[in-house]
Amino acid sequence: MTGERRRCAVLGAGGYIGQHFVRLLADHPWFDPVELVSGERTEGRRLEEVWLLAEPVPPALARVRLRGRTAASLAASGVELAFSALPAGVAGPRETALARRGIAVFSNAADHRREPSVPLLVPEVNAAHLALAARRPRGTAPIITNPNCSATGLALALAPIAPLLRPKTIAVSTYQALSGAGYPGVASLAITDNVVPYIPREEDKLAQETAHILGTLAGGRVRPHPARILAQCVRVGVREGHLESVTVEASRRSGGPEVTAAWRRFDPLGDLGLPTAPRPPIEVRTGEDRPQPLHDRWAGAPARARGMAAVVGRVRWDPPFLRFFVLSHNAVRGGAGGSVLNAELAVAKGLLDRPRGDR
Amino acid sequence: MTGERRRCAVLGAGGYIGQHFVRLLADHPWFDPVELVSGERTEGRRLEEVWLLAEPVPPALARVRLRGRTAASLAASGVELAFSALPAGVAGPRETALARRGIAVFSNAADHRREPSVPLLVPEVNAAHLALAARRPRGTAPIITNPNCSATGLALALAPIAPLLRPKTIAVSTYQALSGAGYPGVASLAITDNVVPYIPREEDKLAQETAHILGTLAGGRVRPHPARILAQCVRVGVREGHLESVTVEASRRSGGPEVTAAWRRFDPLGDLGLPTAPRPPIEVRTGEDRPQPLHDRWAGAPARARGMAAVVGRVRWDPPFLRFFVLSHNAVRGGAGGSVLNAELAVAKGLLDRPRGDR
Amino acid sequence: MTGERRRCAVLGAGGYIGQHFVRLLADHPWFDPVELVSGERTEGRRLEEVWLLAEPVPPALARVRLRGRTAASLAASGVELAFSALPAGVAGPRETALARRGIAVFSNAADHRREPSVPLLVPEVNAAHLALAARRPRGTAPIITNPNCSATGLALALAPIAPLLRPKTIAVSTYQALSGAGYPGVASLAITDNVVPYIPREEDKLAQETAHILGTLAGGRVRPHPARILAQCVRVGVREGHLESVTVEASRRSGGPEVTAAWRRFDPLGDLGLPTAPRPPIEVRTGEDRPQPLHDRWAGAPARARGMAAVVGRVRWDPPFLRFFVLSHNAVRGGAGGSVLNAELAVAKGLLDRPRGDR
Amino acid sequence: MTGERRRCAVLGAGGYIGQHFVRLLADHPWFDPVELVSGERTEGRRLEEVWLLAEPVPPALARVRLRGRTAASLAASGVELAFSALPAGVAGPRETALARRGIAVFSNAADHRREPSVPLLVPEVNAAHLALAARRPRGTAPIITNPNCSATGLALALAPIAPLLRPKTIAVSTYQALSGAGYPGVASLAITDNVVPYIPREEDKLAQETAHILGTLAGGRVRPHPARILAQCVRVGVREGHLESVTVEASRRSGGPEVTAAWRRFDPLGDLGLPTAPRPPIEVRTGEDRPQPLHDRWAGAPARARGMAAVVGRVRWDPPFLRFFVLSHNAVRGGAGGSVLNAELAVAKGLLDRPRGDR
Repeated sequence: MTGERRRCAVLGAGGYIGQHFVRLLADHPWFDPVELVSGERTEGRRLEEVWLLAEPVPPALARVRLRGRTAASLAASGVELAFSALPAGVAGPRETALARRGIAVFSNAADHRREPSVPLLVPEVNAAHLALAARRPRGTAPIITNPNCSATGLALALAPIAPLLRPKTIAVSTYQALSGAGYPGVASLAITDNVVPYIPREEDKLAQETAHILGTLAGGRVRPHPARILAQCVRVGVREGHLESVTVEASRRSGGPEVTAAWRRFDPLGDLGLPTAPRPPIEVRTGEDRPQPLHDRWAGAPARARGMAAVVGRVRWDPPFLRFFVLSHNAVRGGAGGSVLNAELAVAKGLLDRPRGDR
Repeated sequence: MTGERRRCAVLGAGGYIGQHFVRLLADHPWFDPVELVSGERTEGRRLEEVWLLAEPVPPALARVRLRGRTAASLAASGVELAFSALPAGVAGPRETALARRGIAVFSNAADHRREPSVPLLVPEVNAAHLALAARRPRGTAPIITNPNCSATGLALALAPIAPLLRPKTIAVSTYQALSGAGYPGVASLAITDNVVPYIPREEDKLAQETAHILGTLAGGRVRPHPARILAQCVRVGVREGHLESVTVEASRRSGGPEVTAAWRRFDPLGDLGLPTAPRPPIEVRTGEDRPQPLHDRWAGAPARARGMAAVVGRVRWDPPFLRFFVLSHNAVRGGAGGSVLNAELAVAKGLLDRPRGDR
Repeated sequence: MTGERRRCAVLGAGGYIGQHFVRLLADHPWFDPVELVSGERTEGRRLEEVWLLAEPVPPALARVRLRGRTAASLAASGVELAFSALPAGVAGPRETALARRGIAVFSNAADHRREPSVPLLVPEVNAAHLALAARRPRGTAPIITNPNCSATGLALALAPIAPLLRPKTIAVSTYQALSGAGYPGVASLAITDNVVPYIPREEDKLAQETAHILGTLAGGRVRPHPARILAQCVRVGVREGHLESVTVEASRRSGGPEVTAAWRRFDPLGDLGLPTAPRPPIEVRTGEDRPQPLHDRWAGAPARARGMAAVVGRVRWDPPFLRFFVLSHNAVRGGAGGSVLNAELAVAKGLLDRPRGDR
Repeated sequence: MTGERRRCAVLGAGGYIGQHFVRLLADHPWFDPVELVSGERTEGRRLEEVWLLAEPVPPALARVRLRGRTAASLAASGVELAFSALPAGVAGPRETALARRGIAVFSNAADHRREPSVPLLVPEVNAAHLALAARRPRGTAPIITNPNCSATGLALALAPIAPLLRPKTIAVSTYQALSGAGYPGVASLAITDNVVPYIPREEDKLAQETAHILGTLAGGRVRPHPARILAQCVRVGVREGHLESVTVEASRRSGGPEVTAAWRRFDPLGDLGLPTAPRPPIEVRTGEDRPQPLHDRWAGAPARARGMAAVVGRVRWDPPFLRFFVLSHNAVRGGAGGSVLNAELAVAKGLLDRPRGDR
């Protein structure tokens, strides 16, 4: 990689995930968010005027205006990467157009996740799947996606222990934060003094994407992990941080006692030097009442990787069943941060280094 | 039963469950709450001054003063039944003293639940367990308990469908309301913008009590249901109403399609005329996002049985797995209302009709 | 009035205030909600499918479908009254069209509130203003409005004491419930762990409408009360019930000690027999920490008038300053219930009894 | 001041404000928190085990054990300063004992605030009041207090504008955060879906302390500011950050248009180099819906002064009335941070430099 920061655009910078992208990229050593692209609602307004997050607006970008931009104009202005927080439906054609213009897309949207040439990536878990991008149409830049916010945490937690337990069945019930629905998202009258046991399409995504990420690449295709994943997804009145209650039925009666050590040892990206990679990617809490969204959602070191670690706790092994909780920051690890880390991996693996004309 | 209301006491009337007892008994056709007994914090104060519930204080009792009372003085004043919302630890000896004085105890406390002569009762599920009370010490009145608030809803939901599915494993994750911890209970700073994946001793109670209630009585003992119940219990920022996410692994691949009909058909107390019995005891919601605490916690008809029905929804059968949610009002069905219904059952079964001298 | 219930329509029955109208009218002795009219979002759906309130859907109307209806078709189907919960902007022309068709409109919307022939009414305070309706265009039915939800509670609290204090200045700061913004209204991410010191146009409405309601009718016009009303309006994370902190500077140094008695004595509608009128309209709480939304929002007797009383408390007189809090249910007293009471007053005063042709 | 950090103790380190002290002092350039002192509930436990804040536990202190310590033992171990977050009632005698041992006390507790030799200090407002400490008993160290959390924000906001407006009357209604009551503090059942218009003794403190801080020192005594301050204090379901709605009646009809400039210009500590002093101490927000606790409570630059600035907004001048909102972080600016800044001021003014024997 070069000493210069690559020019990048944030798509959907008026929204909740889009602003987490902006926050993460504002002083990123490799990427320079030169374009904040938004839809009509926020177009023309300054970032500080539409800022939604509790974290402060990045001072250097506070007065930048959000703009509507075409793929062509972004390409013309030298943008190399686009981070996409576009809504489902809108994202698909926009991202395709960018890729055709040679702009690599790192997307939080679901639209392209199931395509054979689009890696669905959690770098610590399935970096090898990046190879799928080679199957993309000639002359286009890659599109690389991060998974659904609840799948990310589950995949991270399962990755190091699946080899030990060979899970047959995984029952997972979620406690998902409000920000998972974006802004304005969940109406306050729908959730105050309430929880809602339904999130559209979420349970299928959680099951299928987790199995996909834990799957194996063979013959240019991903064979999903064979475990039966049974999800029930619930919205709770928490701002940020998805908690998941996990009950695994192992196909082996050994392995349970080693899971904590396996989580602690887990550090597959150790030597790559990715700026946003948390070290360790999984933090194990021993307090009897952890993890909790309020206290653990910002886990992750070094400072740039705040909110990037998954946190596990309350681990109990009753052979052949393992129970635990996992928490991850839905908008960081399970959203903007996931795609930033994907982009860092892509850079580190040289995926973005091919000569322009070859895209 | 007689035309007169039986004189009863509410123990712990200064607390949250105690006040639900008071609310339910204020105009009860069979029971007359002549004594509101409390601990030091509220002793001597009028009910209206210490009222905690969002529901209005019963007008007829609003100005009654809470009092400290001994078992002897309650017996002397002609109290026949005591409804106990005493805290764990305190409840045990106090309830024993009352029973020795011939006062039948209907308790929400856990202290006596595991004793061989103390029925742990959900009338629609295991009314037959009432027979255990015959094993109590001669000359004492019975002590009858309602289960833990989360066990009640789960047992109700499983009772009609267990014969169809013969569950092998039941994974349950809970979304438990603040009032489950009593008052003052959970600190607002602990739960605002948070959920807490730990409730002391709750998971064991939920598993063991559910298996016990679904168990069979043989030779004067209860043999628990053999299913493996794996619970994870979580506190959420909801005032009232425990939601539970349930994943059942059946030992049969048939049965699943019939569960909804079985729930709808379930009405084992149909002809007993218990005033607080909900008809039906289980309500099935077909809305895609139900049950929800805000909308469904007060389910139960007729009016006196508000909050006494369990509500199930989001039923999905993927053989051999059944997933669903069940909601029940923790402080009513899973607390005060449960014991009121137990007392009604005891009256209807003649358990309280034996001559005084025989107790 | 006749033995038959008058046929009425609820406009905006898919929304939050509209459903409070439906709830209040479902078994109303004078009005029969034969038409539930809604916009596109909910048109064609059954009331139970779109029900938003925590209170249960009225059983008799649960399966009624919401429909789009014109003024002509409502008139043709014999509708005499329309209760309007239409959004601002939409309400104006729709309500005018209904009035032209001879359908009397009782509206929660602000669109017509400032018109000289449209009474802005709180029956206990300014029933005399009903006379303004006589100035409406010949051949039309009257349009009668209830005030802004925060103005209603303030006007009620001030009405009995203004003659005692002759207020010069009234500083009011509000704690307004989420439902004041309708549904979906306030985004959960905007209000969780937050309060928002801004509600568009609310402060002007609160000041101007309160002065208007407390004003005097002379020469066919309302002369506003001369007190300076200084409002600051804040949204808080409460479902229902607007609390207001009021500091009055009196122009007299006597009067303060009598305010509580004046509130208790206040009962101007005493003999009219309006079904939804609370008796008393103002309840005075003496508890040191009252009124509170959770405990006091449903104040009002008899049962039909639940949520219709204003509740005052924490009254302190430091001459010439009076401080107190007032709470009223924004969606009932300050919304649907206000207009239902207005309609009852109109019926009782014979305003709706003129022969059809004369409208 | 010297290059070495002064040894200090935090009293009440197991509580909410105490932990904010620990957080602020962990890497403080002048003070070294060598003793974390706590009561019985947390004595002997590691800081990380009892950590209550959403902000992370300072890594360097995470494994330090809280201890019970006497004034004598603290003095013997070379502690020069004590930061006190002790509860009212407990604080008084403990702090006196420390002062007698020569340990300067910087306290958040109210016990000593009204004593003639104890400065009640907001450094930007009344640094001159520090002189009162000279009146303390010979041979003792000074006790210096920060005001009540709601008085701090109000005093800061009024200080620069009082000379312009010469306020006659100040009506203030508060929106106070949960953490103002410490931990466990407010019960979740008391505040969920609710606000509580009562905080014991708060209104008097807010009025009297604000007048005192804005008062003038003459003849060794403080003459309070003559404005009439009328407070109504309300608890809301926000974690941190007290919002206050302020209506000032000025005695001059000019001055209003200059208040914003006066706030912006205000920087009385400019050249002292206090590490925790915010620059500027008052931030003016122009957004129509600001300040908000969620977005503005951590205002204050540089990084060490996060949460130390007061934020004002929604400024409206209707002569002779000025309305605005002010927000300040109750636990930082109005608590631990206030006393840390007081200690810095005391150091800068040489108050702690007298030879030991002279205390």
